[in-house]
Amino acid sequence: MVTNSQAALPFLLTVDVDGRTFRLRHASPSDLPAIVSLLADDSLGSGRERTEDLAPYEHAFEAIDADPSHLLIVGELLPGGGGETAVVATFQLSFLPGISRRGAWRSQIEAVRVADSLRGNGIGNVMVQWAIDESRRRGCALMQLTTHKTRLAAHRFYERLGFEASHEGMKLTL
Amino acid sequence: MVTNSQAALPFLLTVDVDGRTFRLRHASPSDLPAIVSLLADDSLGSGRERTEDLAPYEHAFEAIDADPSHLLIVGELLPGGGGETAVVATFQLSFLPGISRRGAWRSQIEAVRVADSLRGNGIGNVMVQWAIDESRRRGCALMQLTTHKTRLAAHRFYERLGFEASHEGMKLTL
Repeated sequence: MVTNSQAALPFLLTVDVDGRTFRLRHASPSDLPAIVSLLADDSLGSGRERTEDLAPYEHAFEAIDADPSHLLIVGELLPGGGGETAVVATFQLSFLPGISRRGAWRSQIEAVRVADSLRGNGIGNVMVQWAIDESRRRGCALMQLTTHKTRLAAHRFYERLGFEASHEGMKLTL
Repeated sequence: MVTNSQAALPFLLTVDVDGRTFRLRHASPSDLPAIVSLLADDSLGSGRERTEDLAPYEHAFEAIDADPSHLLIVGELLPGGGGETAVVATFQLSFLPGISRRGAWRSQIEAVRVADSLRGNGIGNVMVQWAIDESRRRGCALMQLTTHKTRLAAHRFYERLGFEASHEGMKLTL
């Protein structure tokens, strides 16, 4: 079986961000430490992640990568003057079938993170706009997400992109 | 390939509701008219469904039924004294992999509907409690849903089951 990361084109999108090259690609297993660090470096995520044991993340990566309904994406920034290319952003985009709305497919974006030092320079906008475009290319009629009520800057960010906070997002820890 | 509806046990759950037998089972293609009618008989859903053309729903059913990550369930009520067994409720339960929360699987419930004439008699409670139990059986760490902000009775219903309205549910029509 060819998985998402094996079948992937080298880059999904390449843009200029503040004079440096930013590009999106499918995540590979070697990106997991960077992805988990991005998830952990967050007011809500810090207590939920354990960067010292990657095994649970590796199992999750395999499940995501084997299923074309789920895309795990990283954003990387090329060095301006020397140094290494660094993973600075990530998100997951899922495509879900459903009966409602005349059998519409919907996409769902989860775990959107941009490195703290790079917020506000348009990387989040580039990523979510790509996700919107990809959802349209795949024939989705609706895109959805939930974001914690305390993330006020995120609400404004998504509203600027056209999202409407029409629903309550309810969670139950099992 | 054996699809969900073909592989299914006859009934997922059988309970007594107001002296009548209510049971849950995997939906089959012949349930689609009843499911679509339930989705259309709703203040928000009425403008979104078209019961006269089932083809788009049939395509969606095939996508759901072919993927073990998605369960389309119906609830049926056996006749008290004669008549036919009727589909009176439906929901979709999806199991989604993710990197966050130490690679946790989460379940998501969508399109929960109970026939208007039967609301308030515990059918919704039976269905969502089954979905919670099934999510635990499958090792999910979190269950989530979105419900429109105008559905105040639904918010109270889910809060009684332990869900917390911690997130904004944001949607973008594509």
